Amino acid sequence: MPQAMNRQIVLKGRPVGPPRPGDFELVETAIPTPGAGEVLRRTIYLSLDPYMRGRMNEGRSYAASVELGQVMVGGTVSEVVESNNPAFQQGDLVVGYDGWRAYAVSSGSGTRTLDPGEAPISTALGVLGMPGMTAYVGLLDIGQPKPGETVVVSAAAGAVGSAVGQLARLKGCRAVGVAGSRAKCDYVTGELGFDACVDYKTQDLHAALKAACPKGIDVYFDNVGGAVLAAVLRLINPNARIPLCGLISQYNATEMPAGPNLAPLLVNRAMVRGFIVSDHADRMRDFLTDCSRWVREGKLKYREDIVEGLESAPRALIGLLEGRNFGKLLVRVGEDPTRR
Amino acid sequence: MPQAMNRQIVLKGRPVGPPRPGDFELVETAIPTPGAGEVLRRTIYLSLDPYMRGRMNEGRSYAASVELGQVMVGGTVSEVVESNNPAFQQGDLVVGYDGWRAYAVSSGSGTRTLDPGEAPISTALGVLGMPGMTAYVGLLDIGQPKPGETVVVSAAAGAVGSAVGQLARLKGCRAVGVAGSRAKCDYVTGELGFDACVDYKTQDLHAALKAACPKGIDVYFDNVGGAVLAAVLRLINPNARIPLCGLISQYNATEMPAGPNLAPLLVNRAMVRGFIVSDHADRMRDFLTDCSRWVREGKLKYREDIVEGLESAPRALIGLLEGRNFGKLLVRVGEDPTRR
Repeated sequence: MPQAMNRQIVLKGRPVGPPRPGDFELVETAIPTPGAGEVLRRTIYLSLDPYMRGRMNEGRSYAASVELGQVMVGGTVSEVVESNNPAFQQGDLVVGYDGWRAYAVSSGSGTRTLDPGEAPISTALGVLGMPGMTAYVGLLDIGQPKPGETVVVSAAAGAVGSAVGQLARLKGCRAVGVAGSRAKCDYVTGELGFDACVDYKTQDLHAALKAACPKGIDVYFDNVGGAVLAAVLRLINPNARIPLCGLISQYNATEMPAGPNLAPLLVNRAMVRGFIVSDHADRMRDFLTDCSRWVREGKLKYREDIVEGLESAPRALIGLLEGRNFGKLLVRVGEDPTRR
Repeated sequence: MPQAMNRQIVLKGRPVGPPRPGDFELVETAIPTPGAGEVLRRTIYLSLDPYMRGRMNEGRSYAASVELGQVMVGGTVSEVVESNNPAFQQGDLVVGYDGWRAYAVSSGSGTRTLDPGEAPISTALGVLGMPGMTAYVGLLDIGQPKPGETVVVSAAAGAVGSAVGQLARLKGCRAVGVAGSRAKCDYVTGELGFDACVDYKTQDLHAALKAACPKGIDVYFDNVGGAVLAAVLRLINPNARIPLCGLISQYNATEMPAGPNLAPLLVNRAMVRGFIVSDHADRMRDFLTDCSRWVREGKLKYREDIVEGLESAPRALIGLLEGRNFGKLLVRVGEDPTRR
């Protein structure tokens, strides 16, 4: 019976530049036994997110590195298979942070139980999970968009970016995406309702952004840094706000590239502010209330890019850092009982 | 009688790179006659400030360019010599914005009357004028320093920087300056009471800053940009704030240099915010109340670097952009009646 062993992916080497499959290793161990107060849970979905690249490095970032030989970290949706904790029943579906493995034992802290009748359970890792909350906090709290303003977001077809643009529209703003293919741009404007989308790979970025933002840029939600950020800075309006959410373009860099010239910040009294969603846990309830409703009402759409099997996770993460996913990237680690 | 003519300095050419004396021209015209409601005033002190370099360029900045052939703009302390405005008496000493000229006619709007018994009238262009208010608003409102934090300021011996560090000390912070000579650093620590000062010209900037800021950097009041900003970013603490006041290091650049890598902003949830003092006029009363008292009490010191004669202004401004001044740079355009 194959479930008799636990499958886990550990960090085997620290990448220099882009991660390679050999930086990961699939190891099999015994399925752990839950102790007093603990639960055993079976992973259904593993979330893959750009921040994971930083965890593969040694040294200080905003969270601890994964040590060599340790299981890679990550958000998960799981089914409780055995519970010694009165707060959880066998069969409960939960969202937690079990990492790249098929089974995990947990105390249950940091776990939220999901109601599959409310939304597909996989959304707890996407539009109704950390990426959605990142969009919500970063755009609304840091970006402070006002009706009629122009909001630009990079990685616009991704889990965070797709929510940012739709939230901007809901707040009465012009939403402009930047994405890496014609197909992604078509999805962003056609399906998600952004007002415009710039394909940074085939268009003159400055000219295309200028055409897409005839009134300049008031909020730029940055997921990528690099050339897009530099092009945006040339078009910002007075009092522009730039929530700095990610710098994907340089996560695989072996030395830190120079950044954009900051003179436009001075001239325009503009602000760049880095933020980390985990600092804003006090907004969780507002986020879930608002975004669950918008998802139900069809005002906040999402797309999932699901790869099959834990063993696919390394290549999928490598692809994510190259922009090869299309929508929220998930790994189906085990059977989803709600889709039986 | 030499006063029979007015002397003015006009912008003759737009500099490419550093301004040259030939970009300015001294012209003599008749002294203007004040109309109904107007006053004629005689310039005593002209303020020279780094922002003036931007006014010499064509095109959009946060304020309009000086047109070719127009008188250079600038803050001034003047004596009213003739008044058709009941709000002003002959002999009144006022601070206004008359520009690089010996006499000017004004409606009186935007003018504040000075009491020479309160503080030397020249301070209305320095520690109790726009540079002091820039330090006050930028440090206290944008930088939000908290007791025990470390505040770094560049151009620390200049009009703005010298006030920033002293205000930081008054707020219970560790104040660290960055300046361009040993003499300036000695003044900043010895006379102004900063805790430390780094000479960016002779020291390994990163190592020296690290030694001067053993607990990292919480607020960086940036006047210069460039290498100092890049070195500071490597040392910022979580939730650091960077009021972006000036980018003197690149004001003479013919094309915009790259900026620092912004990853530290993301990792540290830090903020860079450009600001322009003129947006914060609502803080004028607080500024004058607080800083006048601190100057009287000897808690807020200042140094003036006064050059003689309007004809000296071009070379003095050129020197200012190279860091050759030492303290608030003023031009004595006419006799100061309070120093007779």
